[in-house]
Order: sequence, then structure tokens, then C-alpha cells
Amino acid sequence: MSTTAVTTDTAAPTGNLEITVSRAELLRELTAAQSVVERKTTIPILSNFLFEAADDRLTITATDLDLSLRTSCIAKVKTSGACTIPARKLYDYIKLLPEGDISLKLMDNHWVQIRAGRSNTKMVGMARANFPQVPEFPAIGAFKIAAPALRNMISKTIFAISNEESRYTLNGALLVLKSESMAMVATDGHRLAHIEKLGEILEGISGEKKTLIPRKALAEISSLLGGSDAEHIEFSDDEQTLFFKIGNRVLTSRKLTGQFPNYEAVLPRDNTKFVIVRSEDLMKSIQRVAQFADERSGAIKLRLEQNELKISAQSTDAGESEDIIETPYNYDPIVVGFNSSYLIDYLRATGETGEVRLEFKDAQSAGQMRPEDGSDDVKYRYILMPMRI
Amino acid sequence: MSTTAVTTDTAAPTGNLEITVSRAELLRELTAAQSVVERKTTIPILSNFLFEAADDRLTITATDLDLSLRTSCIAKVKTSGACTIPARKLYDYIKLLPEGDISLKLMDNHWVQIRAGRSNTKMVGMARANFPQVPEFPAIGAFKIAAPALRNMISKTIFAISNEESRYTLNGALLVLKSESMAMVATDGHRLAHIEKLGEILEGISGEKKTLIPRKALAEISSLLGGSDAEHIEFSDDEQTLFFKIGNRVLTSRKLTGQFPNYEAVLPRDNTKFVIVRSEDLMKSIQRVAQFADERSGAIKLRLEQNELKISAQSTDAGESEDIIETPYNYDPIVVGFNSSYLIDYLRATGETGEVRLEFKDAQSAGQMRPEDGSDDVKYRYILMPMRI
Repeated sequence: MSTTAVTTDTAAPTGNLEITVSRAELLRELTAAQSVVERKTTIPILSNFLFEAADDRLTITATDLDLSLRTSCIAKVKTSGACTIPARKLYDYIKLLPEGDISLKLMDNHWVQIRAGRSNTKMVGMARANFPQVPEFPAIGAFKIAAPALRNMISKTIFAISNEESRYTLNGALLVLKSESMAMVATDGHRLAHIEKLGEILEGISGEKKTLIPRKALAEISSLLGGSDAEHIEFSDDEQTLFFKIGNRVLTSRKLTGQFPNYEAVLPRDNTKFVIVRSEDLMKSIQRVAQFADERSGAIKLRLEQNELKISAQSTDAGESEDIIETPYNYDPIVVGFNSSYLIDYLRATGETGEVRLEFKDAQSAGQMRPEDGSDDVKYRYILMPMRI
Repeated sequence: MSTTAVTTDTAAPTGNLEITVSRAELLRELTAAQSVVERKTTIPILSNFLFEAADDRLTITATDLDLSLRTSCIAKVKTSGACTIPARKLYDYIKLLPEGDISLKLMDNHWVQIRAGRSNTKMVGMARANFPQVPEFPAIGAFKIAAPALRNMISKTIFAISNEESRYTLNGALLVLKSESMAMVATDGHRLAHIEKLGEILEGISGEKKTLIPRKALAEISSLLGGSDAEHIEFSDDEQTLFFKIGNRVLTSRKLTGQFPNYEAVLPRDNTKFVIVRSEDLMKSIQRVAQFADERSGAIKLRLEQNELKISAQSTDAGESEDIIETPYNYDPIVVGFNSSYLIDYLRATGETGEVRLEFKDAQSAGQMRPEDGSDDVKYRYILMPMRI
């Protein structure tokens, strides 16, 4: 059994695991895996890591049933085997240990002994058999996606994903892969973020492949990419599951069902009135003024007049506030209301640097924000529904 | 009226305040004052700052009725007067403004206009007459206390103050001033922190002056001293109130009533069994082991045996954990139980540096912790009641 790969379930080791592992290696993998573990779960086994040891490797699995992460590190395996250990407790304990070797050994009644230096601990684990099956990365059919481009697309769209759990087709962002471009789009019905990256050669794609990726998976991918120097992420899927491989870590996510809305219909086509302002100035002005917006709606008013953008808000409780940014504008005056936090989300996502172009049609139509200094091969747009004010 | 001091209430200005003040100066004083303002108060006026302008100074007052702070900064006073402004909202707004001059003007209906650059805001204030009277610093009879020594005494005792509001005589620390020393002591009935500073000449003290200072006042004094280069704090009191002057800021606190317990009776006198360990080692060991303590009691066991200190804990949920620190010990073995978080509090307060001496009598008697490398003129001791384990 010890000669088959540890990642195939049929060969999953079941002996009385006994290993030695470096604290640094173990902590690095636990740090990656622990964010998948739900803090509050009603299913006790899901608070545990699955440890599997064989062939000089320790494989660590965490799952919340929707999302799973499987990662591994080098270990001295004295006895191959498997055990489960309370995830949070183990992570906190390993963090507090000094650098050095750590021995782990499965004892009777699923207890796991952890020894390091003059520290000796026994944690109460659970039976390995209770740990849910985690799907394996498919042997064929994966696409390679450039890691920095994907990470950028996630950061520019994830905040627009709906928080309403009942709107489950909006609880993720849509990834659109074509042979020479990719795009990501997210919406909550009130605003929509869309980013397209041209010039990405995607081998094996013909036509268009659309995939809805849940928010928690996107956040996890982003965090895994942030802690990795992997240039690519391998992406694959089957009927129920999405698979992402980053270095030696595999993230799997249950697919969201349902149809993502036809977002192309809402992209504005004739927002011909526009101003260009420094993102930092706009951010500061909105933050100041938004304090005086109605707390429930967060509504602020943007008024475009001869060479100025006036931002204002008022509420009976707090008072009223107004900020003026001077900027070229020569079209007819226009007044539109927006949820201030939606504007702030865009400015945060673009790092408050450079300039932003605000494009309008009229008070009843969606507004659009775009980076003014956007590069040619990245097209980013953010559409906001207006509010009556 | 404009020639009398603004700090005497009889001359409090009541006109339509109109001033200009530098944002940096204003923000510095608001930062000091805002921590006194209660976030959740059922008395609306207490969420406001009182602003009083006269004689080229703006005086700012905040109060929660128990604790008040009065501070001031330079201002260009066009019209002397007074107004009240929502504290949190103003503080957040001023923080977001760029550096520069800010104009404030009292309008009709207690609204206050705030102008800076191209920002224009009107906040809903309340009538100045509703703002509670804040006691004035007494003209005579103040003591000067060395600021660094006081701050150190607070940090070494404040954590031992009781959190149980019903035990109101334990909701503060006792300051004991003598002509050539001062001391501070705090207890919650389970542990007691006592620090004495010798060689402090306190003019005007004869015999012993004991003052119970509420926790919130201590925290505020500590924070005000941290942001000040004042060498001394002026301290005074009357029947109801404690007064502390730090630079041009005056903190007043309502006195706690009741008798502080006779703490001298509980100071251990024959804890002859002791070990000396590095504070950092002890902290790490306790933190590791305490994860496996019973969650409610936090109880850990200290076992002293031939040249080692063994720290252990166990609980049915989590498992068991043990750490051994090697250190000279040649007395009879002893086992004592303590609340781990009480030990951690002491180690935090002493900054986890240097060595700590743990002194015991037997399993039924209080233990004592002291810095091993304590200086001659500072005597610090921390007494912990044992737990049955």
C-alpha cells in the first residue's frame, strides 16, 4: 500500500500513524488549511483536520462539505496511517511551539499524541472513517490559468457578489474563459463588476466556458495565490465540483446551481456624460459626506455642473454635508443618487490610486465607473443602479 | 466677559460661537477627549462634546457623568460662545479632512457649521444648557506625582481590578501616598497586585493618603500620560470628585464609595519554596498548556519537583497537555492549581521580559509572583489564590 499515491482514496492509509515533521512545514500547511474549517459547525468531524501519512509525506485535508482543501508536506513517516485532529486547537498549539521537530502519534480511542521538546500533549480526535470523502482532482482535462491575472480579476469583482443567501445564483462570480481572453463578472442586482483580460492564451478552450465560482472559493483561491509563487492555477470541473490546483494544494468547491443573469443586457452603452477625478480625492470626499447619509440607504447625491462634481448627503439625525471636487465638465448638469458604500467598494478594489472616470446618462439610468488609466489588455467596468433621492 | 478665564463656569461663554482652528490641533484634542465619551448612552447630550470659545482658545469637554475630560487648544475666536457637537461624528469627520484650517460656527437650532477647503457640513447639535456641569480643578491643595512612576503603577495593577460591577469597592485601585513613597493595589478577591515605589518625595503629604481610583479613570490617566510629555500629574480631590491635571488637560472622576479591603492581611509571609524561571518561557508554556484547561475555570496545575517546574492541564473535551521547564529546585515537591489567565495577566503586565520568581507555601495557600530582577526602589508582588485541582 505504501507505494501507491496518497491522493487516491482507494489507497488511503488507515494504520496507527506515527510521524515526525518540522514545525515550520506543518504550520505553513495548517495555516493554509485552517481557513477552510468552519468555526461554528454542527457536524463535529468538520472541525477536524484529516491527517494521512505515507511515503514520507503528510497529507492534510480540511472541509466544510462545500469547500475542501488538500495539502501536504514532507514528514518522516515511521508508521503510515491516518487520524483526525481538532483543527483550531492544533493550529493554535503548533503556533505556540518553538521551532523544531514535532512528533505525532495516533493512540487508542482516536487520541493523538503531540511531542515537541519538553512539551507533551494528547488531543481528542475522532475516527478517520467519519471524515467525509473529498473529491480527487481529475486526471485529465485541466486548464492552466495565469495566477496574477486570476487574482486581479477576483479582487475586482468579489465585493459585488450578493450577500443574500437566498439569491444563490448571485452567491458567486462567473468566470468566462475563451481561447484568447478571460473575464469575471459579479452582481448583487444593485451593482455589477465586470473585468476582462485580453491576450491570455488558454489551451484546450474552444468557444466559451462559463463557470460560476462561489464566493468562499474565490476568497480561498485569492488567499492561496497570495501565499504561493505558483505562476499558474490548474482548473477543472465535473458535474458537481470545481477543482483548483495551486502548487501541491488542491481546492475543491461544490458547484452552485442555477443560471447567472444575462448581465450583458445591463451594461450601459450611451453613458456619454462623464468626469474624471483622482480616486483618492473621490474616496475622501465620499467618506466624509457619507457619514451624513441616511443610515439605512447610505444614499449620496452626485451633482455634475460646470467644471465641478458636487457630492452631498443629508439625514434628519446627523445633518447635511457637501464636498466639491473641481474637474472639467461641460455637458448638461445632471444629478444622480447612489449608495455610497457601493462607490467606496470600487475605490477600495482599485487601491485608491490613479484616476476614475464616472459616466452617466441621466438620473434614472445606471452609472458606470472605470479606471481612467486602465491598461489596454484589461477592461474593467463597474455599473451602479441609481437611487431615487 | 472675554477677559475672564474660560475654565471658570461663571464666565462660561454663551454667544454664537464662531472660530477657526487648525485641523491638527483640533484632532489632537478630540482624540484625547473622545475616549471619555460613552458609545452607548441613553442620555443624548453625553454623546456630544461641549465646545467653548473665548480668549483665542477653544475648550473641549467630554463627560459620561462619572468621568469628564476638559482640554483646550489655540483658536482664532471671531465670536466667543459655546455649542455642543455629536462627538463620534465630529471626530470621524475631522479625521477625514485634509490638513488645514477649519471654521466652526453655531447656527440656528443648535446646528453647527463646519467648513474646510471645499467641504461644507452642518451637524445637528444640542443646547449648551443641557450639557452637565463639570467640576473645576480646585485652586489649592494639589499634589504633584511623577508621571512615569504613576503610569507604571497603573499598568502593574489595573488588570487585577474586579470586573463585577456589584463589587463596587473593588472596581478601582487604591493609591496610597506617603511623604516618601507611593503604592497602588488592586484585587478582585481571587488575585491581588501590589506595587510600591520608594524614594518619591511627595510634598504636602503627612501620614498616609489613601484614594480609591475607578478603573476607567486609571485607563484614561494612563492613555493621557502616554500621549503627553508632562513630567508630573497634579492630583487633588474633594468630597465627591478626584481631579487629575496633565499638561492643559483636566480629568475628573466621581469617587467610588465604600471601604477597600484590608489587603495587608492577605500578603503571604512564609512562601519559602520558590523557583526562578524566564518570564518568556513561562508565558509560552502556560499558553500552550492552558488550551487544554477546563474552559470555565481555566485551571492549570504547577508541580515543583527536583529541578523542574511541570505545568499541566486536562479537560474531557480537549485532552491533556504538559510542559516542563528545567530550573533549580531543591525543596519538598509541591502541587498547586491556579487560574491560567491570572498568571498570564502578570506576565503580560511585566512585558514577558527578565525572570519571574514563583513563591509557594503549600497547595492550600496563596502563591506569589515577583520580578526576580526588580529594582531596589520598586517593589512589585502579585498574589494568587490557589484552586482545588
